[in-house]
Amino acid sequence: MTEADFIAALRLLPLHKGAACLRDDAARLEQWILTTDTMVEGVHYLPEDVAGSVAWKLLAVNYSDLAAKGAWPEGILLNYPLRKTPSGEDSWDRQFLDGLTTALKELGGVLLGGDTVSLPPHAPRVISLTAIGRSNCAPARNGAHAGDALYVTGTIGDGGAGLRIASGTAGPDELLSAYRRPRPKLAEGIALAPIVNAMMDVSDGLLIDAARMADASGLGISIDLAALPLSAAYRRFAGEDRAARLAAATAGDDYQLLFAAPGDRAVPVPATRLGTFVHDVGLTLADGEVRLALPEKLGFAHGD
Amino acid sequence: MTEADFIAALRLLPLHKGAACLRDDAARLEQWILTTDTMVEGVHYLPEDVAGSVAWKLLAVNYSDLAAKGAWPEGILLNYPLRKTPSGEDSWDRQFLDGLTTALKELGGVLLGGDTVSLPPHAPRVISLTAIGRSNCAPARNGAHAGDALYVTGTIGDGGAGLRIASGTAGPDELLSAYRRPRPKLAEGIALAPIVNAMMDVSDGLLIDAARMADASGLGISIDLAALPLSAAYRRFAGEDRAARLAAATAGDDYQLLFAAPGDRAVPVPATRLGTFVHDVGLTLADGEVRLALPEKLGFAHGD
Repeated sequence: MTEADFIAALRLLPLHKGAACLRDDAARLEQWILTTDTMVEGVHYLPEDVAGSVAWKLLAVNYSDLAAKGAWPEGILLNYPLRKTPSGEDSWDRQFLDGLTTALKELGGVLLGGDTVSLPPHAPRVISLTAIGRSNCAPARNGAHAGDALYVTGTIGDGGAGLRIASGTAGPDELLSAYRRPRPKLAEGIALAPIVNAMMDVSDGLLIDAARMADASGLGISIDLAALPLSAAYRRFAGEDRAARLAAATAGDDYQLLFAAPGDRAVPVPATRLGTFVHDVGLTLADGEVRLALPEKLGFAHGD
Repeated sequence: MTEADFIAALRLLPLHKGAACLRDDAARLEQWILTTDTMVEGVHYLPEDVAGSVAWKLLAVNYSDLAAKGAWPEGILLNYPLRKTPSGEDSWDRQFLDGLTTALKELGGVLLGGDTVSLPPHAPRVISLTAIGRSNCAPARNGAHAGDALYVTGTIGDGGAGLRIASGTAGPDELLSAYRRPRPKLAEGIALAPIVNAMMDVSDGLLIDAARMADASGLGISIDLAALPLSAAYRRFAGEDRAARLAAATAGDDYQLLFAAPGDRAVPVPATRLGTFVHDVGLTLADGEVRLALPEKLGFAHGD
């Protein structure tokens, strides 16, 4: 069963109105925003990855979903498996807790509860974290209007470049750190929530996430790749030609905020205008004056 | 690292006040009660167990924690791993969802959200479920007063007998069903919450859970095993002599409610009075007039 099939089947269960038909990354319960993510050893991180970075990333990806709702973290629940093996395991578990402590202190939020279970000796770890945040003004991803501008915070492509570095390509620590220890845009999300028509985080790739926002809003979107904000480190690592910009726009792991707002409205945080929502369907891609064919893969799609 | 060590280490993280120092089975966030449980294939259930029963039990054990807080289920989050193997897997996943649908319809609550991930082919499934309930009157487990009576709802021992039957001993479906498909005492919890001084569910064993309630309340507890409520099915399966009663009181998996209330207060649901909280420490066990030595194992202790 693919993830897409499973989620389609989940939609047939009795759903909470705050579940928004499971079409968003977070659920809403009055003023509370709830989101949960699971990381599997060997799938979402490598067995040799530093435990502290795994903890940081698990917290950060949840907080990025809170940021997209303009929510401030209130507390987390942790589901953690303890594996019964003789040596080295205690230190991984302790480093995970140290990393989680550091991340909570730097990013905010506190521990509310959780569950600890035993895992057979050779089973991959499966770690879940649920984050609860408070928002009195949570934007949906489906509220973009035709004519709205599409904006993104920060720079795009650093996370994807960091993944290539983590996988063995030589490259700077700055990009590796963008991949391993992303900083969720919590303050930006709170500042943006009252002025945007739609918002989500960029986790699967800028192009696929922008296309999803347009689709959820019943609109099309045109994006100008020439406007893509690249960091100096990314440009040194990958260049800035069209191929490098396309790679950045489809790589994912950025955890920036993508939002729709009227083009004449003042935006309260640094952000780059990338495109325009239109009465149409689908994604139109240009590089300045040149219309581009869509790449085969817009980003990471569930079910891949 | 044992579960007890890990939980002790977790207590050093920044904690929410609603976490109650991680000494309770559920956390509190204003009127919301949050609880989460993880089940591991081969640890909490057998690979050959019926998927629908696994789903039921995962929901029911979470709802039992809500019941102890006098909370009504509002919604759940599901963290589900999809394993990539060629055959038979789809049907397990679909049966799990069917079982969860049935359980939600019978027990209440709806789906709020979750996360679906890929699992390597031979990894054991690790499934987490988080339940959120609403309670305006949540009892703690540490509020018992000296002189309070200890009560338990329903019958004790059926779940433990069911586990023996699930493990191969011949026995009636009724007991197997008490183990596989326990019914959390949600209505009883709501009726009891306003009149009890302390309440928790019996998940690890009546004796160990009662001792934990007394300890959390800074008291001792004396229990009369002769008063233990046994079902007719349990008596037929295991007898009702002292050994059978001790087995029932230490087996766990009952998901009844254990509560402390003044002995002269009317109790609004059927419940059995089992003992008295005293100014002292520890557990004192009797069988009618006969004082008993404590069994080696009072129930399931984390870290076993």
